[in-house]
Amino acid sequence: MRRTIIGVMGGSAADARTADLAYEMGRQIAEHGWVMLCGGRPTGVMDASARGCRDAGGLSVGVLFDGEREAASEHLDLVLPTAMGAARNIINVLSSDVVVACRGAGGTLSEIALALRFERPVILLDFDPGVTFLEACGPGPWFLVGSAEEAAQRIAHLLEEMGRS
Amino acid sequence: MRRTIIGVMGGSAADARTADLAYEMGRQIAEHGWVMLCGGRPTGVMDASARGCRDAGGLSVGVLFDGEREAASEHLDLVLPTAMGAARNIINVLSSDVVVACRGAGGTLSEIALALRFERPVILLDFDPGVTFLEACGPGPWFLVGSAEEAAQRIAHLLEEMGRS
Amino acid sequence: MRRTIIGVMGGSAADARTADLAYEMGRQIAEHGWVMLCGGRPTGVMDASARGCRDAGGLSVGVLFDGEREAASEHLDLVLPTAMGAARNIINVLSSDVVVACRGAGGTLSEIALALRFERPVILLDFDPGVTFLEACGPGPWFLVGSAEEAAQRIAHLLEEMGRS
Amino acid sequence: MRRTIIGVMGGSAADARTADLAYEMGRQIAEHGWVMLCGGRPTGVMDASARGCRDAGGLSVGVLFDGEREAASEHLDLVLPTAMGAARNIINVLSSDVVVACRGAGGTLSEIALALRFERPVILLDFDPGVTFLEACGPGPWFLVGSAEEAAQRIAHLLEEMGRS
Repeated sequence: MRRTIIGVMGGSAADARTADLAYEMGRQIAEHGWVMLCGGRPTGVMDASARGCRDAGGLSVGVLFDGEREAASEHLDLVLPTAMGAARNIINVLSSDVVVACRGAGGTLSEIALALRFERPVILLDFDPGVTFLEACGPGPWFLVGSAEEAAQRIAHLLEEMGRS
Repeated sequence: MRRTIIGVMGGSAADARTADLAYEMGRQIAEHGWVMLCGGRPTGVMDASARGCRDAGGLSVGVLFDGEREAASEHLDLVLPTAMGAARNIINVLSSDVVVACRGAGGTLSEIALALRFERPVILLDFDPGVTFLEACGPGPWFLVGSAEEAAQRIAHLLEEMGRS
Repeated sequence: MRRTIIGVMGGSAADARTADLAYEMGRQIAEHGWVMLCGGRPTGVMDASARGCRDAGGLSVGVLFDGEREAASEHLDLVLPTAMGAARNIINVLSSDVVVACRGAGGTLSEIALALRFERPVILLDFDPGVTFLEACGPGPWFLVGSAEEAAQRIAHLLEEMGRS
Repeated sequence: MRRTIIGVMGGSAADARTADLAYEMGRQIAEHGWVMLCGGRPTGVMDASARGCRDAGGLSVGVLFDGEREAASEHLDLVLPTAMGAARNIINVLSSDVVVACRGAGGTLSEIALALRFERPVILLDFDPGVTFLEACGPGPWFLVGSAEEAAQRIAHLLEEMGRS
């Protein structure tokens, strides 16, 4: 049976606090036995979440903006270069049972918007893009949380509701 | 020399007021001699803007979510089916000198996010997704306007600044 | 009503003979009142066909591999950057009523394969990738021709059959 | 370190012989400890290769034409829906260290063309699209083989040459 995939989105530049949260999120995903999917670059939230997943012995997938495998974080297990830039954002969204959004800019916000539009639940980890935006996006539910542990608990609950516990 | 393209984004479902604004926006784009680009479907903002452009004798392009030309609005001049769903949103953004965003949901909001991220100016026509979101998106400038005429004036000014008047 | 689009595919590097044929093909498309669509780069078949179309007063569209308008041929009217690399090949194919394939390599051959798969007629202009390949591609019809004039006659005939004369 | 990915391409409709070869190819990939990537649908070469990989205890990834996970083969471990139709073909190619091409039509042939263009080695498993086509595609090497065992030996040799044994 197909494995549960949790997407971790967020900025390619990340301050220390955001990188720490992304690292811890990667760890939590691995410890729960879920697969982690991210944008795959060796910077910011992408690199930190891949490192966390790796350190906890999990399986990670990177769907790259770029066309070269050399552009990927060294902490990933599976590297999928797309050479299709921001067009690949929709893949990150549609492939995830639940999307975790760390602090980010336009790329991350486009992924939140598409996730809610295509009914993927979104966990906002220490990142609040505003209720006006979130309510306008569409039917998917969203949750503001302050820690990776809280995010993981919320994900576990959502998966149970989806019949994937 | 390449022609100036103004993208009009917005919901595939539109209330009467939004459809009227989109129609008028299409007219304004045509009257200024710009090319209008939209998502191309025969509904909502896409159809209304194409109809407005057509009625004022302009040139319009639709970049479709779908793979079949039959899925396009009948008011378009050029129909480009992509069969790539929401992955085509980035094309709408990158092809536009200026993006006009009418009221919409997650798809439209993803286009606003990408436009600001990739430094395309965004005119928000009677649609305010919240300053928290807009400021987080990135470097592109954005402007809230209340009418298609005001949008067109703003576009003309922006194009002049870009040396494309 | 939507305008007829003829796609011209071919190598980003082109020998003199191939570039001459692509130029003449662009002219023919313009003279017949069709819109020309190509890959949009300032080299090889893309540039030559855009130049031919321009010189004969036609309307041309470039769907770019790249994300920057500056990467486009200066002879195009409409420049659509995609930043999605070879993923945009399918757009060139699906947007064309008929595809003309000039001499090219893997990119061009992928477009021929997709065109025949998705039932777009393919005119092979002085380019024969082998009957084994062509017959394996799928249902779309293909025609080997030796000149742009012959290609245009064949296109006119095909459009008439499609009820688009 | 990132894991080696072997892509298996081929028709969504497959005769018994082709399906048997795809199944055996999936087994071989799993037995060698490589990850198998395919188009992910529950038919033809995609389903057979996923089933073979599963039966031999391997890890398999499906990159779907479709937007719904429900459109995937039940034999896959990781399901990545793209909703981008044939635009996703390039992902299959760029993500693979080596591409195995089973018998197929235009979609498969477009993947062979892109693989050779982007310098991915292609193993043609009981499928010969003609030397004229193959030589025109580009720099990537290609090999005609008659069995999955022979394909696996060839892959092992290629990986060794790439320093990935």
